[in-house]
Amino acid sequence: MIISMKPGASREQIERVCERIREMDFEVRSIQGDERVVIAAVGLGNVTHAIEALRSVEGVENGVPISAPYKLVSRQVKDERTVVAVGQTSIGGGEFAIIAGPCSVETEEQIMACAAAVSAGGGRFLRGGAYKPRTSPYSFQGLEEEGLKLLRKAADEYDLSVVTEVMTLGNVQLVADYADVLQIGARNVQNFPLLKEIGATTSCPVMLKRGQSATIEEFLLSAEYIVTNGNPNVVLCERGIRTFESVTRNTLDINAVPVLNQLTHLPIILDPAHATGKRDLIPPLVRAAVAVGADGAMVEIHPDPERAWSDGAQSMTFDQFAKVMNDIEPYVELWKAGRPELVGLSA
Amino acid sequence: MIISMKPGASREQIERVCERIREMDFEVRSIQGDERVVIAAVGLGNVTHAIEALRSVEGVENGVPISAPYKLVSRQVKDERTVVAVGQTSIGGGEFAIIAGPCSVETEEQIMACAAAVSAGGGRFLRGGAYKPRTSPYSFQGLEEEGLKLLRKAADEYDLSVVTEVMTLGNVQLVADYADVLQIGARNVQNFPLLKEIGATTSCPVMLKRGQSATIEEFLLSAEYIVTNGNPNVVLCERGIRTFESVTRNTLDINAVPVLNQLTHLPIILDPAHATGKRDLIPPLVRAAVAVGADGAMVEIHPDPERAWSDGAQSMTFDQFAKVMNDIEPYVELWKAGRPELVGLSA
Amino acid sequence: MIISMKPGASREQIERVCERIREMDFEVRSIQGDERVVIAAVGLGNVTHAIEALRSVEGVENGVPISAPYKLVSRQVKDERTVVAVGQTSIGGGEFAIIAGPCSVETEEQIMACAAAVSAGGGRFLRGGAYKPRTSPYSFQGLEEEGLKLLRKAADEYDLSVVTEVMTLGNVQLVADYADVLQIGARNVQNFPLLKEIGATTSCPVMLKRGQSATIEEFLLSAEYIVTNGNPNVVLCERGIRTFESVTRNTLDINAVPVLNQLTHLPIILDPAHATGKRDLIPPLVRAAVAVGADGAMVEIHPDPERAWSDGAQSMTFDQFAKVMNDIEPYVELWKAGRPELVGLSA
Amino acid sequence: MIISMKPGASREQIERVCERIREMDFEVRSIQGDERVVIAAVGLGNVTHAIEALRSVEGVENGVPISAPYKLVSRQVKDERTVVAVGQTSIGGGEFAIIAGPCSVETEEQIMACAAAVSAGGGRFLRGGAYKPRTSPYSFQGLEEEGLKLLRKAADEYDLSVVTEVMTLGNVQLVADYADVLQIGARNVQNFPLLKEIGATTSCPVMLKRGQSATIEEFLLSAEYIVTNGNPNVVLCERGIRTFESVTRNTLDINAVPVLNQLTHLPIILDPAHATGKRDLIPPLVRAAVAVGADGAMVEIHPDPERAWSDGAQSMTFDQFAKVMNDIEPYVELWKAGRPELVGLSA
Repeated sequence: MIISMKPGASREQIERVCERIREMDFEVRSIQGDERVVIAAVGLGNVTHAIEALRSVEGVENGVPISAPYKLVSRQVKDERTVVAVGQTSIGGGEFAIIAGPCSVETEEQIMACAAAVSAGGGRFLRGGAYKPRTSPYSFQGLEEEGLKLLRKAADEYDLSVVTEVMTLGNVQLVADYADVLQIGARNVQNFPLLKEIGATTSCPVMLKRGQSATIEEFLLSAEYIVTNGNPNVVLCERGIRTFESVTRNTLDINAVPVLNQLTHLPIILDPAHATGKRDLIPPLVRAAVAVGADGAMVEIHPDPERAWSDGAQSMTFDQFAKVMNDIEPYVELWKAGRPELVGLSA
Repeated sequence: MIISMKPGASREQIERVCERIREMDFEVRSIQGDERVVIAAVGLGNVTHAIEALRSVEGVENGVPISAPYKLVSRQVKDERTVVAVGQTSIGGGEFAIIAGPCSVETEEQIMACAAAVSAGGGRFLRGGAYKPRTSPYSFQGLEEEGLKLLRKAADEYDLSVVTEVMTLGNVQLVADYADVLQIGARNVQNFPLLKEIGATTSCPVMLKRGQSATIEEFLLSAEYIVTNGNPNVVLCERGIRTFESVTRNTLDINAVPVLNQLTHLPIILDPAHATGKRDLIPPLVRAAVAVGADGAMVEIHPDPERAWSDGAQSMTFDQFAKVMNDIEPYVELWKAGRPELVGLSA
Repeated sequence: MIISMKPGASREQIERVCERIREMDFEVRSIQGDERVVIAAVGLGNVTHAIEALRSVEGVENGVPISAPYKLVSRQVKDERTVVAVGQTSIGGGEFAIIAGPCSVETEEQIMACAAAVSAGGGRFLRGGAYKPRTSPYSFQGLEEEGLKLLRKAADEYDLSVVTEVMTLGNVQLVADYADVLQIGARNVQNFPLLKEIGATTSCPVMLKRGQSATIEEFLLSAEYIVTNGNPNVVLCERGIRTFESVTRNTLDINAVPVLNQLTHLPIILDPAHATGKRDLIPPLVRAAVAVGADGAMVEIHPDPERAWSDGAQSMTFDQFAKVMNDIEPYVELWKAGRPELVGLSA
Repeated sequence: MIISMKPGASREQIERVCERIREMDFEVRSIQGDERVVIAAVGLGNVTHAIEALRSVEGVENGVPISAPYKLVSRQVKDERTVVAVGQTSIGGGEFAIIAGPCSVETEEQIMACAAAVSAGGGRFLRGGAYKPRTSPYSFQGLEEEGLKLLRKAADEYDLSVVTEVMTLGNVQLVADYADVLQIGARNVQNFPLLKEIGATTSCPVMLKRGQSATIEEFLLSAEYIVTNGNPNVVLCERGIRTFESVTRNTLDINAVPVLNQLTHLPIILDPAHATGKRDLIPPLVRAAVAVGADGAMVEIHPDPERAWSDGAQSMTFDQFAKVMNDIEPYVELWKAGRPELVGLSA
């Protein structure tokens, strides 16, 4: 880490900083600049803690880490890309994963119809919410365990894998009994007790959604919570960040795909439905997801979007979904042919 | 709510929207504009759900609610301001509440010293974290129940009320056994199961912190979760929102104070420490908190900030805290004298 | 427009609003809701002005327009897509436009080498800055007219069209003498005198870059300034918006492509170099630009990026550029084959 | 500056970076860390340029400056605070400056009435727009020179100083003939030719408004453009930044006041009208402006806000203005008494 002193910091202040650095198990290398003293510290101490502490010492202007604060999820620790096995298929390997289904599981008929449509379109993953985090207490909150059962039944009928959200520590085992992939929603990206629990008590694959205001570094630190607690099967999902633009619900941070491909070995999925909130914008963004080198895309479909119990405006009809699947086919072919280059690392 | 059709929407599309509106228990009033048809709907249906559904009907361009989606926390339902009683004191009544203490409870000596300093400065509330939500899994995570015990002991010694964070459903009762005010952290502002639990199982006062990316409307809906589940004793806390500016950790949204004073009857506290991350910026912002008409301010203090286990850079020394308390005294006098005007409602 | 009154607004206040609406050449349709009165106004008055005025009448809570405030650039006024002819080629027609060149024109040798590389890669447009808007007064500010001459010479040598920025009213004619496309930079997106001048005094094609904090609506209003003053040859360029994420310089708002394709008939170009600031991220984002249905992409190249006088970190070498051009070829083929579907309008 | 190499950077890459550093007039101090090499460079070269250049050298991960890129506006170069003399009064000295007036100059009657109200309230500065930057080309664009004349006449009648906006290079002299303070609007904060012109051709005091998306560093660099070109009489004005929150038009960045008080010697004014867009929110925010240690506040007033030609919703009536002036009086007394402490530097 690099600690820069305020211009005019006194000899004593500088000495004190150096002492504190040594106390925290680093070696000191100080550099006399023209305007101020800069102190570099190398060693095996806890950098995050040390910077926090040093910023509060008098005379210090700023402290910046040199290394990233996450370890296990970084490409420095593990360079080859992680392939997360899910049932007969996988995410991050040779297939572009399409995860589709309704926002909420509503009825057996609805989820069965969705599963049939996913399967017909060539998708391998059925999504659907049984526990729903809703901004308003007056909105539909999900069918809970009944929803999980319906989801499992529909997936089994069509040989699909289930992706569904878990919201509380107490439900992790229950949801894991029905799901093939546990989704951690955007609002829980920094629910650290939940991340620890999922890391420590299950090896079920996890799809971690980026929070609306999570930086990429924070997102990776949240993934690190899961991995360092014991579960390495993490898939990242970028689903839009909060910006000033209000025509779309969020702004899909497509930059995040090549950035994450450089920083981490974990697979990355894009979710254009939540990033836009508008069904019509989804087809071109799914194409972009393939082209940019993501490992998959998640979309919402519904047999009758205008009667959906939640998120109808961003759900595609089955016809639209079929069209999208058809539309992206040649892009997926290119993706398969050029995987290593696609991730942009060799450019 | 107002539903605007796309220009060129067909007669059938308009009819269909009207039908759907009636199905959802609203009456239809349609308006023929120059370019498009606009449909107003009045009635007692669920507006949030209805707009979601209608946005997905073909031919619809947009739907906007007219009323706010929260009810119980709004000034329309209850105009007189809520005073949350806490032990011998209160928040939202005639006193400007100062909540002070360390970021984390570290040792008995440390928390005792902090309590003494809070008391000496005239504060009535001792804060301190026993369960810490930390961005990195490698940072100090709190003393847990041991921390709660130390906090209670220190508060009792100096006749202070305890404000401390609860992070999981399973801990609500435990924390409530030690705390006078349960803090819900910014990262949990949309942890809906936690909000429901705290609403339903305790009447302990709650301080709900705004999320870094929560809009004021979302913030109030989160408060509504608590109140509608049974606990009306909610204090709001603005602690900075995430913006592009990076000199400060977050941007204190001081606009939120007069806005919230118009929209809700709940008290509102400002937290300039988390909003800036820098100790030197806190004194002028505490003065601003008084002047803008907030009901209190929360600050961090530490006997030796540069050895704090967390957030040292934004913690004041005891001397600085004493100076701030002294500094704001005349402002608090003005605040007390002009309370009704201060909130800016009569201007 | 829709004006909603505060709950409890008085009869007199409502009457006054209705009067003001009629004064401004609208008809009044008022709607009695359960909680408040809502007034719809239809007619040919100036909606932007009227809403501004009405928001300041006592008892009014809010006013929202129903129609977009821009006209000439909207698809409602002109549905067929605009093709901007530039010399022998065009933007928005059947070709995916590649605009490439150095950030700044530095020397004859440099710009000649760049032009050769652009031409070799199959690009048709040479970009390069002669007048540079630099955040710091101590950075290189451009070669000015000398730069324009070199740019023209290089372009002519390789039969390319010149895209270059104009920063002041006084230079519009001068720059137009050398350029085929006038670029208006992101910082000038709301430099209204410049927009008017370029609209009124030249028919030279214009590439208008979105400001870092311009909403899509503001961006289109800026385009409207040019078109309504007489110059219809406008190409839009999305180049990243300012968000909290700091790993990349800006966040490429890829959502904006399908959104703009719905709202306007003007062509739209993506600029991933300015949106990321990092050379390695550009190849995958150029692929995404093709796949999402943009009309072209702008990139920066330099014979020796590490000795570039500006923006070296986001400039590709000639080898990298050649590789990107090769890489996107099959995507461009798909783009050409599926143009109407690509823009996502038929989905 | 500090250049950090990628982990695994080769010996050759490191050598090359060191060579480039020396070429650019810096000395090299390299540090071998555990994971990577970090290179510190000290000397008198152009840091901004050097970092840009070095970031594009292979093997480099990042480069960060240690010193701020602005010089003349910084407190390191000049520690005593600047007092900008304006006619008989000043900004940044012993008075809290109130700048008030209408958004746009409309008629002689209107501006005369405003000047009378400003004077009656104890204000010393009359603001009013004669050249208006408007988002829509269909909005009122200002009375131009006729407006300047009316403004001057009204100010002279009541012994006030005139603050008014200049938008183009060609108008600087004309506006300076009528104005006591030239305002540079938020949209022109990075209109570098305008900044240079105002720096080089006039010594008239300048009020520079922060752009909606300008960082504090960029804001200070824009001020540096003016000062380094010859005009030291710069007053900064924070007027709200663009964030995701949409209840208010912008978010007043009140943190910026103590931050700027640490970084620069220039005076700083707050503009709560543009930061909120809502008249009712202004009184508490003006009080906060005094308490936080700003040097003044700018507000909008109008004899009949609901008939204002622009920005009526954020304009106060004369009665409201009189009340605000009365309301802040005791706060201003505290401000005068505690000026040095108020700016928070001694805390």
